[in-house]
Amino acid sequence: MIKIAPSILAADFSKLAEEVIEVEEAGASLIHIDVMDGHFVPNITMGPLVVEALRPVTKLPLDVHLMIENPDAYIEQFAKAGADYITVHVEACPHLHRTLQLIRSHGVKSGVVLNPHTPVETILHVLDEIDLVLFMTVNPGFGGQKFIHAVLPKVKQLSNIIKERNLPIEIEIDGGVDEETIIPCVEAGATILVAGSAIFGKQNRAEALREIKAAGEGAIKK
Amino acid sequence: MIKIAPSILAADFSKLAEEVIEVEEAGASLIHIDVMDGHFVPNITMGPLVVEALRPVTKLPLDVHLMIENPDAYIEQFAKAGADYITVHVEACPHLHRTLQLIRSHGVKSGVVLNPHTPVETILHVLDEIDLVLFMTVNPGFGGQKFIHAVLPKVKQLSNIIKERNLPIEIEIDGGVDEETIIPCVEAGATILVAGSAIFGKQNRAEALREIKAAGEGAIKK
Amino acid sequence: MIKIAPSILAADFSKLAEEVIEVEEAGASLIHIDVMDGHFVPNITMGPLVVEALRPVTKLPLDVHLMIENPDAYIEQFAKAGADYITVHVEACPHLHRTLQLIRSHGVKSGVVLNPHTPVETILHVLDEIDLVLFMTVNPGFGGQKFIHAVLPKVKQLSNIIKERNLPIEIEIDGGVDEETIIPCVEAGATILVAGSAIFGKQNRAEALREIKAAGEGAIKK
Amino acid sequence: MIKIAPSILAADFSKLAEEVIEVEEAGASLIHIDVMDGHFVPNITMGPLVVEALRPVTKLPLDVHLMIENPDAYIEQFAKAGADYITVHVEACPHLHRTLQLIRSHGVKSGVVLNPHTPVETILHVLDEIDLVLFMTVNPGFGGQKFIHAVLPKVKQLSNIIKERNLPIEIEIDGGVDEETIIPCVEAGATILVAGSAIFGKQNRAEALREIKAAGEGAIKK
Amino acid sequence: MIKIAPSILAADFSKLAEEVIEVEEAGASLIHIDVMDGHFVPNITMGPLVVEALRPVTKLPLDVHLMIENPDAYIEQFAKAGADYITVHVEACPHLHRTLQLIRSHGVKSGVVLNPHTPVETILHVLDEIDLVLFMTVNPGFGGQKFIHAVLPKVKQLSNIIKERNLPIEIEIDGGVDEETIIPCVEAGATILVAGSAIFGKQNRAEALREIKAAGEGAIKK
Amino acid sequence: MIKIAPSILAADFSKLAEEVIEVEEAGASLIHIDVMDGHFVPNITMGPLVVEALRPVTKLPLDVHLMIENPDAYIEQFAKAGADYITVHVEACPHLHRTLQLIRSHGVKSGVVLNPHTPVETILHVLDEIDLVLFMTVNPGFGGQKFIHAVLPKVKQLSNIIKERNLPIEIEIDGGVDEETIIPCVEAGATILVAGSAIFGKQNRAEALREIKAAGEGAIKK
Repeated sequence: MIKIAPSILAADFSKLAEEVIEVEEAGASLIHIDVMDGHFVPNITMGPLVVEALRPVTKLPLDVHLMIENPDAYIEQFAKAGADYITVHVEACPHLHRTLQLIRSHGVKSGVVLNPHTPVETILHVLDEIDLVLFMTVNPGFGGQKFIHAVLPKVKQLSNIIKERNLPIEIEIDGGVDEETIIPCVEAGATILVAGSAIFGKQNRAEALREIKAAGEGAIKK
Repeated sequence: MIKIAPSILAADFSKLAEEVIEVEEAGASLIHIDVMDGHFVPNITMGPLVVEALRPVTKLPLDVHLMIENPDAYIEQFAKAGADYITVHVEACPHLHRTLQLIRSHGVKSGVVLNPHTPVETILHVLDEIDLVLFMTVNPGFGGQKFIHAVLPKVKQLSNIIKERNLPIEIEIDGGVDEETIIPCVEAGATILVAGSAIFGKQNRAEALREIKAAGEGAIKK
Repeated sequence: MIKIAPSILAADFSKLAEEVIEVEEAGASLIHIDVMDGHFVPNITMGPLVVEALRPVTKLPLDVHLMIENPDAYIEQFAKAGADYITVHVEACPHLHRTLQLIRSHGVKSGVVLNPHTPVETILHVLDEIDLVLFMTVNPGFGGQKFIHAVLPKVKQLSNIIKERNLPIEIEIDGGVDEETIIPCVEAGATILVAGSAIFGKQNRAEALREIKAAGEGAIKK
Repeated sequence: MIKIAPSILAADFSKLAEEVIEVEEAGASLIHIDVMDGHFVPNITMGPLVVEALRPVTKLPLDVHLMIENPDAYIEQFAKAGADYITVHVEACPHLHRTLQLIRSHGVKSGVVLNPHTPVETILHVLDEIDLVLFMTVNPGFGGQKFIHAVLPKVKQLSNIIKERNLPIEIEIDGGVDEETIIPCVEAGATILVAGSAIFGKQNRAEALREIKAAGEGAIKK
Repeated sequence: MIKIAPSILAADFSKLAEEVIEVEEAGASLIHIDVMDGHFVPNITMGPLVVEALRPVTKLPLDVHLMIENPDAYIEQFAKAGADYITVHVEACPHLHRTLQLIRSHGVKSGVVLNPHTPVETILHVLDEIDLVLFMTVNPGFGGQKFIHAVLPKVKQLSNIIKERNLPIEIEIDGGVDEETIIPCVEAGATILVAGSAIFGKQNRAEALREIKAAGEGAIKK
Repeated sequence: MIKIAPSILAADFSKLAEEVIEVEEAGASLIHIDVMDGHFVPNITMGPLVVEALRPVTKLPLDVHLMIENPDAYIEQFAKAGADYITVHVEACPHLHRTLQLIRSHGVKSGVVLNPHTPVETILHVLDEIDLVLFMTVNPGFGGQKFIHAVLPKVKQLSNIIKERNLPIEIEIDGGVDEETIIPCVEAGATILVAGSAIFGKQNRAEALREIKAAGEGAIKK
């Protein structure tokens, strides 16, 4: 089954509850929350208070992607605010094993994010500490970018390793996912697909979400 | 006249439009937006997308307080998103004169923030570039703090300089402002008062706002 | 009364207990501990484990001088290890009021250090949060330096403010203090004098300490 | 032969000479010194003055592990203080080849440390510049951690490369080493084993050291 | 054909035009410009104003090597000044794919630099975004270094990948290149060779350049 | 007497020797060299190699203005390259007294730079260590700026202190200095005037320099 994770980065921030409820009812599986600190990426977006505000609004898991330097300092805050997943960038974590342990120590599922250029080899020694790997198919924190197809062989590479070793790790893809690009993502092994403007940029969000999801599920059956 | 600037940091982030409209109708004069980057202060809150989302919701000026390192890099984004005031910390600006010029170059009113310990002397040579001085009466970005009365002599000191030199500078105070603390603030010369949980922490926000404002205006008449 | 605080930076690190006991018996009033992180100053020295090791060895107050960036992150560790005083550099504290509050919140006395060039004006608005002001009469963390007499007018300036306002603040001086330089220090208002090599660099540490102390007390009587 | 390197991080810092002499007499092969700067890892421990104080106390090689940012700036100080080995983190060295050259230029043996997640591939092009590779089996600088078994395949991988290419490189393991965990470490190819609380945390340090060493040597014979 | 890129770092900075014209007439193919910021490497050299000054002086491509942190912030300045190639260090680019896109978006050819220890694997997923790979055969920004032969297997490795995948990527080598070392460089697959003091350190620069070039071309024919 | 210091930042970098000789012959008193590192200011310009290249070209003192972070790390390089003055920013020097001592220890005259907003009070305790104070009348490192008249009262303030205490300190002004703005600068007490595009931006550099100088000397006589 394909899980769609609408990214509220593209939602109307003046009425987040409404936005989130709409996509939950339309069949979203997680709510994706993009945290940027203006240092790891050149943009500042949102923090724990958004997680806290959405926690009572939805039953969906809150999937928090930390595009920040020194994530260790903020993991506790996000966990207490209600995060279900916290993902960190391998480029921001000189002590990656420790950071993943710290996330799990708060009862939260741990994730690692790979930038478009980052090799899968950087995480092979900590797969036991990982619940989710997020592949970026655009460069995080920069606007107006297109889906980077060159990332898909990495997705396939990890997907094969996961199957061989029978590991309970989800593969998520974020960046330029829409009705068309979702197909090769799913074929490469992705199970969670983040979609932002492809959902919240549309008049009829429910319909947009259902169409993307249907396209993704179609790709599985093949 | 006293201007009250409700800080949305204390509002319900799942329905900001509703929160802002309620305080606008109750007589708020500005909407105060606290931006934290997790580096200048140990918290991450919100960025330009909140300014952009609120711009069509209210006619009130949006008063953006940047608790961030290297504010020069983000001034253009906040200006384009719709900020009416942008205030920066003197502690974060080795080129303060330039930063203030940059804010004004975008048609935005420029402000400087002084931390509780920061002397007024640090800004005396750039008063011509300043539209607003914000005095922190708590330490910004840290929770559970009480109003610091020791800041008020600094407010009085600047207020006197402004009067003597007949400068068109507003004095704003942020931190622990409520019905009681507003009185010495106004007496010391503050014209804009930020209030967060004293408004959004109350069941009846409109009433809370009106009572604080009334207390402040009472202090002027004396 | 003059208090002498031997700095263990100059002691033999292979037998600290012995060194500390010797100066305690000779009449030392505090043990001075110089923590350097290799970032705020170009040297790395010691951390909480030294405080912890010395805590059961002596009854004297442990006076911890943090020559480190971001001291807020380490205050709790030093407090738990047994520090009685923690002093921080105004140059390292953009939120100085908060840092001082944090020190006191752990039941530790709070101090601020001024570098040779740093004006007294930088701390005038937080004197209520301060138990001790440490004036550096050499540049901290650099070797082979001589006592900087130009610091003494600043000591006198603060001493006068303390007397006028009747504040319970100790004045400490660190750097090149010996039998001769202690005299103008005491005359300027210092009450705690740090001495390193002038004590631990001598064969007979007890005698050296007593001579410095006697010189300092002689200066009071004048 | 197995070499045991007691880590003085776990020793009583008030009487280091005594501690070091005790383990030297019990058969230690090196003294391990953990330098932390509070930036690369969230702890501050000790610096060159400890190396300098221990140099005349023991004939054993002093094995200095730099858990610090920008190690280039401190290599000369540690070399002059008497270090025999200096190891640096690949995560802290954008110019790793240069850093290793610099260590050797001071007549000191050069080492590289790999964090639990760091692949062996990161050092394959500089093996000619390396005398020792240290594998962390806990996350350095964080307390209360358990031995991470997932590191051992990396140890085996490097051990095989060393044998094939007949390189004069020692393999050291640090983190949670005790009588039991030493066995797989030695089997994987480690020749130097760091032990901290497993030695200094025991009443009878000599006995503890001898038991660990015996367990390690037992593993070789198999 | 072998291209020689004289590095003006070794030229007389008081008469750069003259120096550049001399090597252009002698058959240089590019002019290599080494930008250092004193942060990524411990030296400060030159910036966009040198590119701008040389642009009207020569018709050769200007090949700008950025040994700087945060290169994204300076790419536009160098592009506008007239750079034909801009190369960035993989160690300085957490968002490498984005940085390469940004270079090309200004109509400039994009390059990546690998330090002596940096594996080729770090760039394999972004080869489509790269016009040139620069291998350092000394450590950049440090003086008095010798050609590091251990880099050549990496050159060969990439050269093979480029041939197999038929990619339009140039391979450049910088560091200690002279009449002798150029031979194994060319044999390993390098097409552009940077030479500094081997040209500008000689009385007769034209002759020196021609001899190095001839040696390189001799290596191809073999 | 008024000293004019042409800033080579505005000269043609392809023929610096020629440019410098021309202004020396026209009556320049010093050559001003603006070093920017892309971190303290958002521009990268030049480093020690320019100082070294110009040293044999001119007999004039080389006046090096370091707009860089951590200047201590580069003072020796600039001194060895031939600098006669080295000036550092008070905003970049947490250990300002030490930095000034370090400059003088290399036999170089020491200077401090004040940004437009920086109070004179920040340097009053180290005047004995200073040979030159440079007041910025534009924001350093940013283009297209106008002379900031609000700086002149600070110049007057320091000039008075220097006269009262009879200190051998030169006052230099940099930023937008031309035939007109030089007059109030000299009246306020400046003795060295930096001019960039007002000289090198003109066809006839010699004439431009002489006219500015004449204007400045006219202001003294009044």
